[in-house]
Amino acid sequence: VTTRVAVIMGSDSDLAQLEGCFQTLTEFEVPFEARVLSAHRTPQQAIEFAREAKGRGIQVLIAAAGGAAHLAGTLAAHSLLPVIGIPIDSTSFNGLDALLSTVQMPPGIPVATVAVGKLGATNAALLAIQMMSLADEALYARLETYRAKLQAAVEAKDQAVFSKYGRRP
Amino acid sequence: VTTRVAVIMGSDSDLAQLEGCFQTLTEFEVPFEARVLSAHRTPQQAIEFAREAKGRGIQVLIAAAGGAAHLAGTLAAHSLLPVIGIPIDSTSFNGLDALLSTVQMPPGIPVATVAVGKLGATNAALLAIQMMSLADEALYARLETYRAKLQAAVEAKDQAVFSKYGRRP
Amino acid sequence: VTTRVAVIMGSDSDLAQLEGCFQTLTEFEVPFEARVLSAHRTPQQAIEFAREAKGRGIQVLIAAAGGAAHLAGTLAAHSLLPVIGIPIDSTSFNGLDALLSTVQMPPGIPVATVAVGKLGATNAALLAIQMMSLADEALYARLETYRAKLQAAVEAKDQAVFSKYGRRP
Amino acid sequence: VTTRVAVIMGSDSDLAQLEGCFQTLTEFEVPFEARVLSAHRTPQQAIEFAREAKGRGIQVLIAAAGGAAHLAGTLAAHSLLPVIGIPIDSTSFNGLDALLSTVQMPPGIPVATVAVGKLGATNAALLAIQMMSLADEALYARLETYRAKLQAAVEAKDQAVFSKYGRRP
Amino acid sequence: VTTRVAVIMGSDSDLAQLEGCFQTLTEFEVPFEARVLSAHRTPQQAIEFAREAKGRGIQVLIAAAGGAAHLAGTLAAHSLLPVIGIPIDSTSFNGLDALLSTVQMPPGIPVATVAVGKLGATNAALLAIQMMSLADEALYARLETYRAKLQAAVEAKDQAVFSKYGRRP
Amino acid sequence: VTTRVAVIMGSDSDLAQLEGCFQTLTEFEVPFEARVLSAHRTPQQAIEFAREAKGRGIQVLIAAAGGAAHLAGTLAAHSLLPVIGIPIDSTSFNGLDALLSTVQMPPGIPVATVAVGKLGATNAALLAIQMMSLADEALYARLETYRAKLQAAVEAKDQAVFSKYGRRP
Amino acid sequence: VTTRVAVIMGSDSDLAQLEGCFQTLTEFEVPFEARVLSAHRTPQQAIEFAREAKGRGIQVLIAAAGGAAHLAGTLAAHSLLPVIGIPIDSTSFNGLDALLSTVQMPPGIPVATVAVGKLGATNAALLAIQMMSLADEALYARLETYRAKLQAAVEAKDQAVFSKYGRRP
Amino acid sequence: VTTRVAVIMGSDSDLAQLEGCFQTLTEFEVPFEARVLSAHRTPQQAIEFAREAKGRGIQVLIAAAGGAAHLAGTLAAHSLLPVIGIPIDSTSFNGLDALLSTVQMPPGIPVATVAVGKLGATNAALLAIQMMSLADEALYARLETYRAKLQAAVEAKDQAVFSKYGRRP
Repeated sequence: VTTRVAVIMGSDSDLAQLEGCFQTLTEFEVPFEARVLSAHRTPQQAIEFAREAKGRGIQVLIAAAGGAAHLAGTLAAHSLLPVIGIPIDSTSFNGLDALLSTVQMPPGIPVATVAVGKLGATNAALLAIQMMSLADEALYARLETYRAKLQAAVEAKDQAVFSKYGRRP
Repeated sequence: VTTRVAVIMGSDSDLAQLEGCFQTLTEFEVPFEARVLSAHRTPQQAIEFAREAKGRGIQVLIAAAGGAAHLAGTLAAHSLLPVIGIPIDSTSFNGLDALLSTVQMPPGIPVATVAVGKLGATNAALLAIQMMSLADEALYARLETYRAKLQAAVEAKDQAVFSKYGRRP
Repeated sequence: VTTRVAVIMGSDSDLAQLEGCFQTLTEFEVPFEARVLSAHRTPQQAIEFAREAKGRGIQVLIAAAGGAAHLAGTLAAHSLLPVIGIPIDSTSFNGLDALLSTVQMPPGIPVATVAVGKLGATNAALLAIQMMSLADEALYARLETYRAKLQAAVEAKDQAVFSKYGRRP
Repeated sequence: VTTRVAVIMGSDSDLAQLEGCFQTLTEFEVPFEARVLSAHRTPQQAIEFAREAKGRGIQVLIAAAGGAAHLAGTLAAHSLLPVIGIPIDSTSFNGLDALLSTVQMPPGIPVATVAVGKLGATNAALLAIQMMSLADEALYARLETYRAKLQAAVEAKDQAVFSKYGRRP
Repeated sequence: VTTRVAVIMGSDSDLAQLEGCFQTLTEFEVPFEARVLSAHRTPQQAIEFAREAKGRGIQVLIAAAGGAAHLAGTLAAHSLLPVIGIPIDSTSFNGLDALLSTVQMPPGIPVATVAVGKLGATNAALLAIQMMSLADEALYARLETYRAKLQAAVEAKDQAVFSKYGRRP
Repeated sequence: VTTRVAVIMGSDSDLAQLEGCFQTLTEFEVPFEARVLSAHRTPQQAIEFAREAKGRGIQVLIAAAGGAAHLAGTLAAHSLLPVIGIPIDSTSFNGLDALLSTVQMPPGIPVATVAVGKLGATNAALLAIQMMSLADEALYARLETYRAKLQAAVEAKDQAVFSKYGRRP
Repeated sequence: VTTRVAVIMGSDSDLAQLEGCFQTLTEFEVPFEARVLSAHRTPQQAIEFAREAKGRGIQVLIAAAGGAAHLAGTLAAHSLLPVIGIPIDSTSFNGLDALLSTVQMPPGIPVATVAVGKLGATNAALLAIQMMSLADEALYARLETYRAKLQAAVEAKDQAVFSKYGRRP
Repeated sequence: VTTRVAVIMGSDSDLAQLEGCFQTLTEFEVPFEARVLSAHRTPQQAIEFAREAKGRGIQVLIAAAGGAAHLAGTLAAHSLLPVIGIPIDSTSFNGLDALLSTVQMPPGIPVATVAVGKLGATNAALLAIQMMSLADEALYARLETYRAKLQAAVEAKDQAVFSKYGRRP
């Protein structure tokens, strides 16, 4: 199976926040690989990974990093594949540093940034799937199913809350 | 020609910051249309646009909005196409309100957020092109040319600065 | 009994912060219903709720949401009833994202925003009651009683603190 | 004619940002009065105004203030009428100080906060009108007309932008 | 004994952060009283306290409040005594709301603001003592002793750290 | 005439923001001197000034500085006189850096912080006067006159605004 | 052994965050001493230390402080040695106060600022070593070894993560 | 003459803020070269520059960049020379994005960060000179002269301000 998405983290301490990303890709049956490549500590490995990704059949790069989060930008500088950045909350600034380091890219080198931490991890996977679904109707169909389930889950919670708290006193 | 990208702004006062987006799409010969659809003032039009976009052949939605910038999120809630959000700096908070309103989406409904204002406008176009290039090699080839020109432009500036300031005293 | 106030939350995880809202409405004998309607995951339900609210006799909409908190704005876009927004602290940004997403609405579509989280939940109920009391003297009378009790509670604490710490050494 | 809404500012330097508030109230034919009452420099006048407002037939208090913006909170502490707060951008902090001083009220004493500056000024008027329209169908009808005009104005801009930028290249 | 300093808090939940203030005043043998007076919930009591303070012989007012912290400003509006404000960290904004609400006072009505929370509580007491020591040499002498002890305590810690970590390897 | 107040700035570029401070001290007939002493560039002069201030009869030190605004803290570290800090808005951070550097002092060494820039400059003078008025009834009487004039000025503006905008339509 | 680096903290409560600094200096066999010198509570000791440092053979000063973190700036004002500042997260503002107080130094008196807290502590040691390695090839060689080990550690984690999460499903 | 310092900027639009850096290096007779190398647009050139710098005799790298300012971090990842980062204020966030992107580096790869913009540009040069002066007594002597002139300039301003504003009334 060819890897279609690479989920790259700057540190293995980011793993805990990425579970939703892995689960979502698995649920959509998208072959992916998870890597630890640091923009600062193993920069050459990160750069080579970015350069070779397209040739290996990878379609989307997902990068998660905290603090001065340069990982997504580094990958984007060395590849023309779409790069999705997940800012990680790993310093005393609650992820604001990672968000600004990831999203404020200069013209020419975009990074598709999602929300900080767990919120963003699931959405990074979905965003990658949306990108790939532009040319993959089977994937698009799974997105429809996913969205319907999401809606049904909220509707069930609506019923539960309405039963318990609704129409008072 | 079928529209492939829609550039939707919440207010026509956002136009000035979007010029780089239009230019880039035009340079890449990507057919697009520009619209003013407000998540709050013409919500039904925005929703209908989102719902019908895929059927019309649109592949990527780009949404630019300032303040409580709900436009990208509203489009994402009513479509499964990838949505790119450009936070606009149009209030006293320098675009921080628009950035957080755009990027902090809940799990299930991603928005690919780029930098605030003009920085992000050009990159939104490039990101859309990267997404579409996953299944469009001609577009990918143009990305290669674009990146090379970008690099050459910086190299030229490097020469100019080096000539003027380099090797001193 | 006709529902006069609807308390709508974007996620049932917001429930814990809304207890003060429910208690206050109950204490004032205001019939209300609590709902989970997501601007992004069940947008059509949220919109329909907003559209039909006035016809059902609802007078005020209270919306609680975190992150890119679009719920109050979405309801306000589809209804002419006053909408009160409670920003919820549910992300790494301590509710700043929800506050700015809720309060920075564009001209034409107001949201009456209260404080983040529990502080705001009680006040959202009181604000709804103040609005309804413009044409409901019985409700206004209860506001007078409530305010008097509030004052008496602080006075009692003043006495307790003064006894323990006052006039030293 | 009895004043129904009072628009109170902490300083006459706030006037320039309130024009949209005055215009909107005038457009809706809501009798109002504009006052300069400072929570810090003429506190007794502000308090007396708040206390006597209901007796004079006033239904909603709108308060605009910058910096340590205590005006809305002061009025709310001395009245049971709904109080709407407009944070004014008048210091080096771009209105963040005024926003937090206005919105972060303690439980028991709500202030309905709108966006900073001009954005919020128009919406404060509309919010007051929405509150009064709960018992004034004529006012509610004018809200419907207003919303329709707002929508038509955005639609006209959409046409203009679409003509100029739409469907390219 | 006449009260010389009043320590006023907006809520008894602020007590825990004020211990250093009480201890310092006690250590300096400054007669003080502690009160719970809310700018919003018992505003009339707060105002009367401020107005009568000088007549009762009080020389300095210390006010501690969180959120939209209007207490210090309210006291300052109704008294010509120096008012010291301690911003309390009691909301999701870590005391930033209280700091800005306390310090950003308009020209004419100063509040002497100290650091957020416990840091500021001790310093509020010292600042009050410094003010009173302008005309009280005995108090000034105690300040000299206090400062010397403070210095000695840091010197002792310096020795301890130097013994354990100094001159390595 | 003995100097009673010293107004110390870290840079002569801060002068423009201090005019209100000088005017207020002059209006109250408080002898003062203005100095440029930098905590970083002329630290020894700043320290000596702080140490000798009390001996020279100075009662209050006012310090204005921007950026990493250490001036007030440095003076406070070398004197037991009350020190008032005016954060100056002189960097790209709008005075937030100066505010936090001035107000967040450690326990033991207080700085009485006022608002950023011009707002704070006038209030620093008033605060110094309030401190000195604890033992100077003539000064206290001038404070009463000042406050009355302040109130009258706002009342006049209230009349002007009310005449122009009041009671409409 | 002559001390080459001094690690100075403003409070012994900062010790816990400095462990990585001590470890790194020890690992590089750089003789150092650790001190508690407060810019505000033992300013004279801090100043004398700064003045005498070069004479004692010290080459780099590392200063760690929280809140209104003036320590690094004070040392820099009294020495021409390079000063490295570590902002400590010790107040309710998560180290933002310490970061701005440390980094925003005026022209003429630089402080080399590193990241807040533990992140920065290790890097402060490395930065000092980099500075000294300009004239110490043995130290430079140890930097090469250190960087290689750092890289190897990330590579090992990459392998571990790839084994566990890589190439799915 | 061998280049001892390289001043690298991410964009030639940063030039205006770097004048103080060039002037200071020139004043100290430190041979330097100025370059435009972008971490994102000419990453390979930036990396090669970093790798070859030491071999070319360069001792310190100064990097200036705005927005998602990765330049200093990228150079630091590919070199063991000390890297000084100047955050540039070039986006709507006033340099906060550049500051956090530059300073919040992970353990192992330090960047010596100075103040945002012009403030920091001069200091970056001085910091580089301080580093080199550890092994260059001539340079250290120039630092002493520079500091003395800096002090004299402030003293002259002190005299001017004292003459004009001092000892009033």
